[in-house]
Amino acid sequence: MDIEKYQIEAYNEPLLAAHGKAFDYIASTVPNAAAIIDKLRAFQIAIPSWALGTGGTRFGRFPGGGEPRNLEEKISDIGMLHALNRSSGAISLHIPWDIPSNPSHIKALAAQKGIVFDAMNSNTFQDQPGQALSYKFGSLQHVDAATRKQAIDHNIEVINYGIELGSTSLTVWLSDGSCFPGQLNFRKAFQNTLSGLQEIYRALPENWKMFVEYKAFEPNFYSTTVGDWGQSYLYASKLGPQAYTLVDLGHHHPNVNIEQIVSLLLMEGKLGGFHFNDSKYGDDDLTVGAIKPYQLFLIFNELIEGMDARGMEHATDLGWMIDASHNVKDPLEDLLQSVEAIMIAYAQALLVDRKALTEAQLQNDVARAQEILQQAYRTDVRPLVAEARLLDGGALQPLAVFRAAEIRKNLVKERGAVSIATGL
Amino acid sequence: MDIEKYQIEAYNEPLLAAHGKAFDYIASTVPNAAAIIDKLRAFQIAIPSWALGTGGTRFGRFPGGGEPRNLEEKISDIGMLHALNRSSGAISLHIPWDIPSNPSHIKALAAQKGIVFDAMNSNTFQDQPGQALSYKFGSLQHVDAATRKQAIDHNIEVINYGIELGSTSLTVWLSDGSCFPGQLNFRKAFQNTLSGLQEIYRALPENWKMFVEYKAFEPNFYSTTVGDWGQSYLYASKLGPQAYTLVDLGHHHPNVNIEQIVSLLLMEGKLGGFHFNDSKYGDDDLTVGAIKPYQLFLIFNELIEGMDARGMEHATDLGWMIDASHNVKDPLEDLLQSVEAIMIAYAQALLVDRKALTEAQLQNDVARAQEILQQAYRTDVRPLVAEARLLDGGALQPLAVFRAAEIRKNLVKERGAVSIATGL
Amino acid sequence: MDIEKYQIEAYNEPLLAAHGKAFDYIASTVPNAAAIIDKLRAFQIAIPSWALGTGGTRFGRFPGGGEPRNLEEKISDIGMLHALNRSSGAISLHIPWDIPSNPSHIKALAAQKGIVFDAMNSNTFQDQPGQALSYKFGSLQHVDAATRKQAIDHNIEVINYGIELGSTSLTVWLSDGSCFPGQLNFRKAFQNTLSGLQEIYRALPENWKMFVEYKAFEPNFYSTTVGDWGQSYLYASKLGPQAYTLVDLGHHHPNVNIEQIVSLLLMEGKLGGFHFNDSKYGDDDLTVGAIKPYQLFLIFNELIEGMDARGMEHATDLGWMIDASHNVKDPLEDLLQSVEAIMIAYAQALLVDRKALTEAQLQNDVARAQEILQQAYRTDVRPLVAEARLLDGGALQPLAVFRAAEIRKNLVKERGAVSIATGL
Amino acid sequence: MDIEKYQIEAYNEPLLAAHGKAFDYIASTVPNAAAIIDKLRAFQIAIPSWALGTGGTRFGRFPGGGEPRNLEEKISDIGMLHALNRSSGAISLHIPWDIPSNPSHIKALAAQKGIVFDAMNSNTFQDQPGQALSYKFGSLQHVDAATRKQAIDHNIEVINYGIELGSTSLTVWLSDGSCFPGQLNFRKAFQNTLSGLQEIYRALPENWKMFVEYKAFEPNFYSTTVGDWGQSYLYASKLGPQAYTLVDLGHHHPNVNIEQIVSLLLMEGKLGGFHFNDSKYGDDDLTVGAIKPYQLFLIFNELIEGMDARGMEHATDLGWMIDASHNVKDPLEDLLQSVEAIMIAYAQALLVDRKALTEAQLQNDVARAQEILQQAYRTDVRPLVAEARLLDGGALQPLAVFRAAEIRKNLVKERGAVSIATGL
Repeated sequence: MDIEKYQIEAYNEPLLAAHGKAFDYIASTVPNAAAIIDKLRAFQIAIPSWALGTGGTRFGRFPGGGEPRNLEEKISDIGMLHALNRSSGAISLHIPWDIPSNPSHIKALAAQKGIVFDAMNSNTFQDQPGQALSYKFGSLQHVDAATRKQAIDHNIEVINYGIELGSTSLTVWLSDGSCFPGQLNFRKAFQNTLSGLQEIYRALPENWKMFVEYKAFEPNFYSTTVGDWGQSYLYASKLGPQAYTLVDLGHHHPNVNIEQIVSLLLMEGKLGGFHFNDSKYGDDDLTVGAIKPYQLFLIFNELIEGMDARGMEHATDLGWMIDASHNVKDPLEDLLQSVEAIMIAYAQALLVDRKALTEAQLQNDVARAQEILQQAYRTDVRPLVAEARLLDGGALQPLAVFRAAEIRKNLVKERGAVSIATGL
Repeated sequence: MDIEKYQIEAYNEPLLAAHGKAFDYIASTVPNAAAIIDKLRAFQIAIPSWALGTGGTRFGRFPGGGEPRNLEEKISDIGMLHALNRSSGAISLHIPWDIPSNPSHIKALAAQKGIVFDAMNSNTFQDQPGQALSYKFGSLQHVDAATRKQAIDHNIEVINYGIELGSTSLTVWLSDGSCFPGQLNFRKAFQNTLSGLQEIYRALPENWKMFVEYKAFEPNFYSTTVGDWGQSYLYASKLGPQAYTLVDLGHHHPNVNIEQIVSLLLMEGKLGGFHFNDSKYGDDDLTVGAIKPYQLFLIFNELIEGMDARGMEHATDLGWMIDASHNVKDPLEDLLQSVEAIMIAYAQALLVDRKALTEAQLQNDVARAQEILQQAYRTDVRPLVAEARLLDGGALQPLAVFRAAEIRKNLVKERGAVSIATGL
Repeated sequence: MDIEKYQIEAYNEPLLAAHGKAFDYIASTVPNAAAIIDKLRAFQIAIPSWALGTGGTRFGRFPGGGEPRNLEEKISDIGMLHALNRSSGAISLHIPWDIPSNPSHIKALAAQKGIVFDAMNSNTFQDQPGQALSYKFGSLQHVDAATRKQAIDHNIEVINYGIELGSTSLTVWLSDGSCFPGQLNFRKAFQNTLSGLQEIYRALPENWKMFVEYKAFEPNFYSTTVGDWGQSYLYASKLGPQAYTLVDLGHHHPNVNIEQIVSLLLMEGKLGGFHFNDSKYGDDDLTVGAIKPYQLFLIFNELIEGMDARGMEHATDLGWMIDASHNVKDPLEDLLQSVEAIMIAYAQALLVDRKALTEAQLQNDVARAQEILQQAYRTDVRPLVAEARLLDGGALQPLAVFRAAEIRKNLVKERGAVSIATGL
Repeated sequence: MDIEKYQIEAYNEPLLAAHGKAFDYIASTVPNAAAIIDKLRAFQIAIPSWALGTGGTRFGRFPGGGEPRNLEEKISDIGMLHALNRSSGAISLHIPWDIPSNPSHIKALAAQKGIVFDAMNSNTFQDQPGQALSYKFGSLQHVDAATRKQAIDHNIEVINYGIELGSTSLTVWLSDGSCFPGQLNFRKAFQNTLSGLQEIYRALPENWKMFVEYKAFEPNFYSTTVGDWGQSYLYASKLGPQAYTLVDLGHHHPNVNIEQIVSLLLMEGKLGGFHFNDSKYGDDDLTVGAIKPYQLFLIFNELIEGMDARGMEHATDLGWMIDASHNVKDPLEDLLQSVEAIMIAYAQALLVDRKALTEAQLQNDVARAQEILQQAYRTDVRPLVAEARLLDGGALQPLAVFRAAEIRKNLVKERGAVSIATGL
């Protein structure tokens, strides 16, 4: 199901006057509206192929209708989102769920929608039908060399699929760890994992990056073998310059200061990318910005500061991706809300008066430093984000268009009420 | 697969001398060995029907072999566990997974194994095939009265199954709650839930109890409608004298002092029962005593103190149940370890010199109070627990017998390598 | 040090044009600007007398200069804050730090500044010089009746001071609890505490309220005797209709959903009031809204919903107070920032389209419910808050005036660079 | 106040028969009693000078009597503890609280008591009277170079005091960090801190170690500049081979797996030492083993495994220290309980059948791995610990002797009821 440019324009039409007023107001009160809009337009967030369908919790799963049944339909869905918000022009694939039977056809289809292939994701946390050896006791950490080799080979296979599609990065997330004290020798588990990552690393093309994702815990766990940023950093620094840490916002212990981690990883040149989502209790995979929007802003604040300091061009130098699960909302609506929240946080962070902030810091003027951040955060930047979309042909109100155009209804008609997205 | 008394005796035979020595030693050093053994023998822990098979995490599930395929086989498995440890003579059923097609046959089978029917469990956290209305947005809290009625009717149906089997309690665990701010009106959700529980309560036979289980969070949640002991207490006190709070050890926020909750609920006459398990991070459903054995001891310490103060006979007055999930261990081995850990904690708590403890408390002699608890906890009470088993015809080393008798191997032979337990 | 109306007007003068533009813009985009401004003007937040000086952490304390040396100077400071923001027209006293030697003089002074006397606070968590019995092992929970009586008498004395000044509520915060397992009999500690609270309750004038504040933990604690909302509710419901629970935002375990607690306490008619602050890790007593402003908004959202449902008039029916500690900021600047953050959250919550929200909830339209909350939260309401201040003669930018008028410098000149506020 | 050898023998006399029986029993059931006793005898735990007096919480401090008034009395107290338990033959000093006016006299005094000088501790988290520049906004992280230099100089001065006394390590714990978002530039704070540590490192004698202690948070904090093991590891690896991470058990976020951190730091050759204590909620500084004794055992289990793997001699290669605070117990009693808990955990960990554990791990036999750990942990090893003490002339029951000999009473007589230990 496509949404055409003229349709979007038609939906925008009655809103243009109000938008113009709102935009003029904000543009007249912030010093750098044009520069912010340029940055917003350049910013693209990858959508993971598995976030297009309904997820589940440990107990229940309540699927919706019209979910994409194959890779083509996943690309189509993301193309539609991208048409609406002009900020989600990338897809992140998961193997084996998204093995392209005809890569060149898939590439052409994606190109036509303006979609590029972001990080490839391997899966060694589930056993696939017909798989020779089980990952019940881990994959790269496994005490058995043959199981480790199977996991290594799978990752290399994923790289190869990625090469065919034009991706340039591999995200490795392992659910390796243990459920009970005594189950693992922590040191040997680390060393086995490192050794496996090294073999995979050797298979990386020169222009590729490897992202080592960490996660503090899963339900039923006692330890995880890539459990925090410190461990991920150890792996990445031992692997070499193409290896980086990937930060998923939900993968931390309670209260952890994520923005500080972001800053330090940038300092070390080891921040690779992000999985955006939000959470109240653990790895809840809720809509970005739905629970802690100020934390999201503070993270972007560090990103901008750190990238400036390193002379980085954000749009290409870091991997930005949503990683969420949708149980009670339409997945596509949820993704539109997530992208909007990210763009808002980014725009607010771009508003921060960095010169004044540095000055306040050098004077230990804590109250003023807070004022500077809050001045940016409390500003209603939505008209800036909308303007950026408008300039690129997107919708002023993507979610409203999604509803007004009855996109879900049409998808259900097209794909059926009981389709279930491949993947999670 | 049964294990016969003579087999157990044969396994015990070569261990008797060493056990005798160990038992004599401990019996000579503690003042009340005989009384403790009497209490241990009277203590029975229910096994939930769903804990007999392999569980899963959010991502992977790695089933084992020889799992029970029906209610008869579940009773058989628990009968075998009970033959080994003489402390798990009760089963807790889950409807619809365990609907008895022939209740009188099931009752006879259980009686033959020395198994009674503990609390019945309803399920309104998953949609069953063919179910008219979905629980996607909750069950008793639902904004739609018809969905609420469906959930109420289901609970009443569960009570009726329980009556047929001789159970005398219903455990209500709801995954009702919300994923996002704004989704629920908390107050109306509470009131709908209360109103539903009241209707279910009215269907309780006079000699039944209703247990209202609370849980702080699930992955992907923002709120839960029975979220902590305070909420459960509110429901239970509004419902009436047959309603109680049920404490599951894994259902708390980080760091919460569970033993204090236990004490206060006993004080209020509202502690109904327990779901035993252990956890490192959240609701991990790990083997009882595998992570925080001292906390388990402290809980038993409060239970004994509080039950003594109320003149309660523990063996019948509270519902004791394991609620665990087994992903990397044989479920039956895990249950044997769990029951052993519970018996040890109970025995240690029975060793506490209560008179001296009260005295130390009245003198604010904190160091001595700690010494008194640690004196009991550091004692190796395993010979007491083993002696209690031995006197009832159980195995000195249940897990060793389970392995030596190759029970799992026989179950796989009997039921197949790919059987999957009904339920979770 | 007073700030005069004409001074404030002079500072406002050059800002009026820009404010007018901003206010006109927001007033033209929200439907109920006038009604919101009325509510904002009626809203008053009490300043605790101990928040006017520099606080400390466990290790270091770095006092500032010009801190108030007595009750008169504390009232003077709050009068100055109130002159600037017109929203902090109340003071909350702490006995023995603020014993008024001449109550009628103090009352007159406060009246002259437009300050009323909010909740009185007792102190049984520290030993005062010359105190007969120590609170080392608790106060109302103490095993010794004489110590309990001393604590009860002190609370009654606090009530009497309050009566003289025109206060109508008593806040009881106890640091009673234990450091080690075994130290306390939880049940007896609860019962002793309840019995003490009952005696204090009997001394309450008819028009007074008693607030029972809970706190999950202190450093070096193992248990607290009023540890969570459930315990506070138990006390308050056993005490009677004049007893209520007081919620301090920092007094919870990690991740706890405070807004749900607020909703349920309002439902039960047992929410008494608030201690506002913010925190990253525990009871950090940071500036309100400095860490989790969206949580603050969600709490106000529940307050408005619940007060509407109960037909409550917020401005008089709940006790609103800041409870913060200032280590690295000027305390008065911090308080100005705190009040501003509270007013913003309140204004945002007043913007929520409640009819639409209820509708979305009844349709389980979770995405729309989120949109409705975010629409309100993302709005820049600062011009509404400023307008409310302006209409009452306050400063458009209170913090800027505080700095421009060099108030701290003048206070240091007046009171000395090494004055230390009485109290914490 | 000294306790003489003959006195201890007199207290032991009536207990010898029962001890002999208990020791014979355990010695006959474990395979390696003699080897364990040798290791226990070699193990020494340093007592920090500041733990000899009563500590405080944020609000109250309730000092006891007879506290040491100077360094000589501190050494005397530790000498007395060491005479009783033969396991605390080291003191850890804190500058400026323990500046030795006459180092050679102090050295002689300590030698006479069998006490060596463990790690020296610097203090840049408090301002000392007369100090030129304040640490209000940090020390090594400070934006002002002169303040950083003052902190560097202080640390070098501490090293020099240590050299005079024969210490060979410096522990740097910083309370550097921030209270609010925006206050710090995280990266510059890290770089300033690193640069300061580098200057201090250059002042280290060749045979010295530097321990970089991390801490997740303090009350009133938003970030800490050495916040977790990952940050400490970054500093230590950039500093060089004499720099190590120091782990304090209470300095972690909720639920963190500390034993895994221990294992990984040992793997990297960067584990320097320990601050032992216990906690329920945060940095509670409670008696070692009073809350989570199984965690303590698991940590020792990793230490033994990792030290074996590195061929380390524990008694000299790692720094072992208690770091606790005593509010409701006699500090000296608390320290006796702490040392006992450490010795028990160490003995239990030495009992672990490592060969069998490795085998179980290689077979993914999780249930058996758990059995192996629990077999060791559930053993009552107290007679082994007592025997080790007895062989070195210590007391069978140190705490009982402390009480029977009325040591505190005598200390109060000697030093007065209102003495307050220098330091915290």
